[in-house]
Amino acid sequence: MRDPAAFVDEALGRLRAEIPGRAIVAASGGIDSTVAAHLTVRAIGDRARPIFVDTGLLRAGELERVRRSFATAGLPLEVAEASEAFFRALEGVTDPEEKRRRIGTAFVRRFEAEAERFGTDRLVQGTIAPDWIESGGALRDTIKTHHNVGGVPKDSRLVLVEPLRDLYKDEVRAVARTLGIPAPDRQPFPGTGLAVRVNGPVTPERVRRARIANAIVEEEIERAATAGAIPHPWQYFAVLLPVRTVGVTGDNRVYGEAVSVRAVESVDAMTATALELPRALTRAIAERITRELSGEVVRVLYDVTDKPPATIEWE
Amino acid sequence: MRDPAAFVDEALGRLRAEIPGRAIVAASGGIDSTVAAHLTVRAIGDRARPIFVDTGLLRAGELERVRRSFATAGLPLEVAEASEAFFRALEGVTDPEEKRRRIGTAFVRRFEAEAERFGTDRLVQGTIAPDWIESGGALRDTIKTHHNVGGVPKDSRLVLVEPLRDLYKDEVRAVARTLGIPAPDRQPFPGTGLAVRVNGPVTPERVRRARIANAIVEEEIERAATAGAIPHPWQYFAVLLPVRTVGVTGDNRVYGEAVSVRAVESVDAMTATALELPRALTRAIAERITRELSGEVVRVLYDVTDKPPATIEWE
Repeated sequence: MRDPAAFVDEALGRLRAEIPGRAIVAASGGIDSTVAAHLTVRAIGDRARPIFVDTGLLRAGELERVRRSFATAGLPLEVAEASEAFFRALEGVTDPEEKRRRIGTAFVRRFEAEAERFGTDRLVQGTIAPDWIESGGALRDTIKTHHNVGGVPKDSRLVLVEPLRDLYKDEVRAVARTLGIPAPDRQPFPGTGLAVRVNGPVTPERVRRARIANAIVEEEIERAATAGAIPHPWQYFAVLLPVRTVGVTGDNRVYGEAVSVRAVESVDAMTATALELPRALTRAIAERITRELSGEVVRVLYDVTDKPPATIEWE
Repeated sequence: MRDPAAFVDEALGRLRAEIPGRAIVAASGGIDSTVAAHLTVRAIGDRARPIFVDTGLLRAGELERVRRSFATAGLPLEVAEASEAFFRALEGVTDPEEKRRRIGTAFVRRFEAEAERFGTDRLVQGTIAPDWIESGGALRDTIKTHHNVGGVPKDSRLVLVEPLRDLYKDEVRAVARTLGIPAPDRQPFPGTGLAVRVNGPVTPERVRRARIANAIVEEEIERAATAGAIPHPWQYFAVLLPVRTVGVTGDNRVYGEAVSVRAVESVDAMTATALELPRALTRAIAERITRELSGEVVRVLYDVTDKPPATIEWE
């Protein structure tokens, strides 16, 4: 990309050519899909409808944050409440790959329904070059991994439009600056949402626990980083583990689950180092999680594995 | 207890009175059962047969260590190979309480068979006061929790003989000194063995993993403690978790299990503090476990929970 402003002009032209009528835009709250939504609305006005799917797997405050950011930018945003469909799709599934497939299919089905309702077959999404390079180049057949789709089923009538498909992340950031879009204030979050932070069965109850634990980890780590006690990690989160382990409350033994905390430093996510956290911080996190999820989570673990041999996310 | 030597005299008299013929002695390798074995052999000579049950759930080197310590003391020891029976009893069981019950029953059945083979109904065991105080006083009906028995079944013909039942731990140690028994060189190990260190299903394969991980944790922590990098912890061990999580080896993603490492300081085991381990040590442990169990364990966690709210052991 030579020049962000020139890229914007070209992208607007291509979007107008590729979208004869209306289009829905898959909005996740991430920078890529936000830039794609900006461009599409700018190109075709109210013939574009950005849609944010509430999967029931969102972080605490996630929906409000995305609403606010779109409103601030003067962009329309439609929220599709879909948690029941996602939890139904995930019922009884524990295999991580199968989870991704089910979630991907649930996204496709919902976007198909939304497209039909809006009178179009065009779905704009913020795919960037690493997305399709990493997935082996079979991009035309897939929905951006941010929406975590293995592949669009053969029988789908959705036509993908991908204005950012040749850009790399730093180029997307340059375009965002040109468009006046502020950088997101939160760390990256997988499109599979809390489903990959809930090891084992994904139920509304277990997602609630992961959401609370995750919010505590984010708060405590951000507080420590702001105070200068630790560097601001590349990524940091909680994972709920499907174990049965014993704790004590008062004079009673209680069985509950465990939460694993992860905080890594990385330059490019290809390798990563588990951060050394001060004992006062891990103690504060353990204390809050076991108190705010009393009787549900009795044990907190800190992931000390670098990448490799472990990955950053658990699934 | 006024005086260890006087206690020994009285105990020998009582043992001779309570055991008209022969007796088997449940030997676990712990100090209590070792003292009980010493006393019994001294009281009734070769009418006593100490038996160590190899459950298939032992730590690395455990059997050799117990053999050696009995041989050094000039005591007889019979090893009952019982791993098949224990694994069969544990098949399909994940509930921690049910695991204990099954293990307890397997111990009772094996001791019954050994008693019959030896021509007796008397089982000597090293129950001490905290064992029956903690279990609510229903001692007469139970086998010492070191052998992890909920209760001897009503139909059992075993008659329990408990020469140490009124002693506390420090008194047992005083008696051991009087008898010239050296203090055990290893940390306490639950009679349920590695079964409580294998969260979820207990299979030979998963016990093998827990055994290897546990040996690594013991070695690395003892090395660090000897070097003065950390205090010698009260207890330290590894637990295998029934999770499916992703790691990378070379260019491949591989799914494996996770291991949780625990190291606590404590004065009396009623409360405990998770020790702060230097990052170099947790990294060395994580690196060795994921390498020596390559493709089987891809993630290592450090348990940062104090007691309360967690217990020392996982189950």
